[in-house]
Amino acid sequence: MDREIRIVEVGPRDGLQNEPTPIPIDLKTDFIERLVASGLVHIEATSFVSPKWVPQLSDSAELWPRLPDGGVYSALVPNAKGLERALELGVERIAVFTAASEEFTQKNINMSIGESITTFRQVVADFRVAVPRGWVRGYVSAAFECPFSGRVDPEKTLEVCNLLASEVGVDELSIGDTIGVATPSEVGNLAGLLVNDYAGEIGHVAWHFHDTRGTAIANVAAALEWDVFRIFDSSAGGLGGCPYAPGAGGNLATEDLVYFLEREGYATGVDLETLARASLPVLELLGRQPAAKAQVAALALASR
Amino acid sequence: MDREIRIVEVGPRDGLQNEPTPIPIDLKTDFIERLVASGLVHIEATSFVSPKWVPQLSDSAELWPRLPDGGVYSALVPNAKGLERALELGVERIAVFTAASEEFTQKNINMSIGESITTFRQVVADFRVAVPRGWVRGYVSAAFECPFSGRVDPEKTLEVCNLLASEVGVDELSIGDTIGVATPSEVGNLAGLLVNDYAGEIGHVAWHFHDTRGTAIANVAAALEWDVFRIFDSSAGGLGGCPYAPGAGGNLATEDLVYFLEREGYATGVDLETLARASLPVLELLGRQPAAKAQVAALALASR
Repeated sequence: MDREIRIVEVGPRDGLQNEPTPIPIDLKTDFIERLVASGLVHIEATSFVSPKWVPQLSDSAELWPRLPDGGVYSALVPNAKGLERALELGVERIAVFTAASEEFTQKNINMSIGESITTFRQVVADFRVAVPRGWVRGYVSAAFECPFSGRVDPEKTLEVCNLLASEVGVDELSIGDTIGVATPSEVGNLAGLLVNDYAGEIGHVAWHFHDTRGTAIANVAAALEWDVFRIFDSSAGGLGGCPYAPGAGGNLATEDLVYFLEREGYATGVDLETLARASLPVLELLGRQPAAKAQVAALALASR
Repeated sequence: MDREIRIVEVGPRDGLQNEPTPIPIDLKTDFIERLVASGLVHIEATSFVSPKWVPQLSDSAELWPRLPDGGVYSALVPNAKGLERALELGVERIAVFTAASEEFTQKNINMSIGESITTFRQVVADFRVAVPRGWVRGYVSAAFECPFSGRVDPEKTLEVCNLLASEVGVDELSIGDTIGVATPSEVGNLAGLLVNDYAGEIGHVAWHFHDTRGTAIANVAAALEWDVFRIFDSSAGGLGGCPYAPGAGGNLATEDLVYFLEREGYATGVDLETLARASLPVLELLGRQPAAKAQVAALALASR
């Protein structure tokens, strides 16, 4: 069996974007250096979103040239203006985002799903002209359930995935359980639909689970059972908090993902102890103790 | 499909035993009342172990008569002396414990596995005479890996399970990932051996996962795939800490288990919000914030 796997580390973008305290750029650079030193390669480093919306990532233009060697970096690009800023810096891997729920898309990016597809079709077309060998990831948020309108029909999620593949022309999907509610049978249902009917390349479908209720690793296991999914998103130290409460789990912790994958026989290339230390300075600034389970266990074992 | 499930709440015994601070008996009684009010039925309430070994549970004789109506209670019994104390109180459900690793059994209960089987054979024989309609659970700790001697051969675990079934005559097994390292393929391997070769009743095999590295729910999912396992142990609020570090995950949190099972379509009979509040007074005395993921999420949703 092919045991290759790709972890997409989203801590510097999705993680820090959802933490209330902005991180100084030197600390952010140090954080990314530590992630690369742990063996992580694919890192979503920042977002070219308006600083008014996300002040935590307002340093993206300054950060990008400082990204350390050894990583393959991407940046979120919400619109034409964001693309312009990204292209000025030579960004070659971008991510765009929509959702499987109209209500979520409206509240999150102030567009309908259809409008988001139209917008990103143009953004990606412009990107392709500027960077013919570039790479585009498309996020599908609220792929299982919407915090505003409840459960999402998996056929609807499939439809949005196919719009991103066919209309926008993304290279890769990332399917997000944004509020961390899904359990393995839901993952299996959606996975089955995608395996049968996804218009893009199934091997380029990533899963982005949140661990808000402790189900993320079970969901990774459910996706892996299909033997075609090999890309998982996670955030070092579980950075990213929670939409509901301080201290609650949001993003799946990269430490938990690495521990699970390695124990299951997948080669991640990541050193768990180095990774467990990577987020410590950021957590210290945020005033938090490390709380990701495999991180705490690795740090405790290392200190014995 | 039969969607019945049984949760065995081990917080009052396995949880509190592993917390450094002893809980006053009034608070302990209140905790158990709250657990029963949430809908939990099967509760391992205490242990008749020597107070020298486990001062946290030294109030077992005083606690037992105060257990609230509505629960089905069991108590750990480590030896003849413990059985004598339990029988004086009318205990009708006992648990004995050994392990799949010689090194663990030696360090944990100062016996070889063989000696533990001999000891518990006599304890259980005496119990059967005193309580003909009683129920006996046998714990198999370190069923996947031993903290002292590493990985445990699943055939060895099966052998110990069969000794408990055939020699000791337990009614029910509980298979423990004591240090919280197992992942689903290991659970699947052991489950397969048990399904084929367990000498006792396979429907009476419980799984006792620790969530030290975030894999417990994935392991529950792996066990459920066999469609014969219906009993899972957990601890409200994740009480029980961790063998390695304060604040680290030990026992699987009952909140995470209930959330997962309900979302997967199993009827647990437990109200998640009531359960999420059940451990709050104990956590407050321990000086800890609630940290179980589904607990934090439920409390946050309830406070909106």
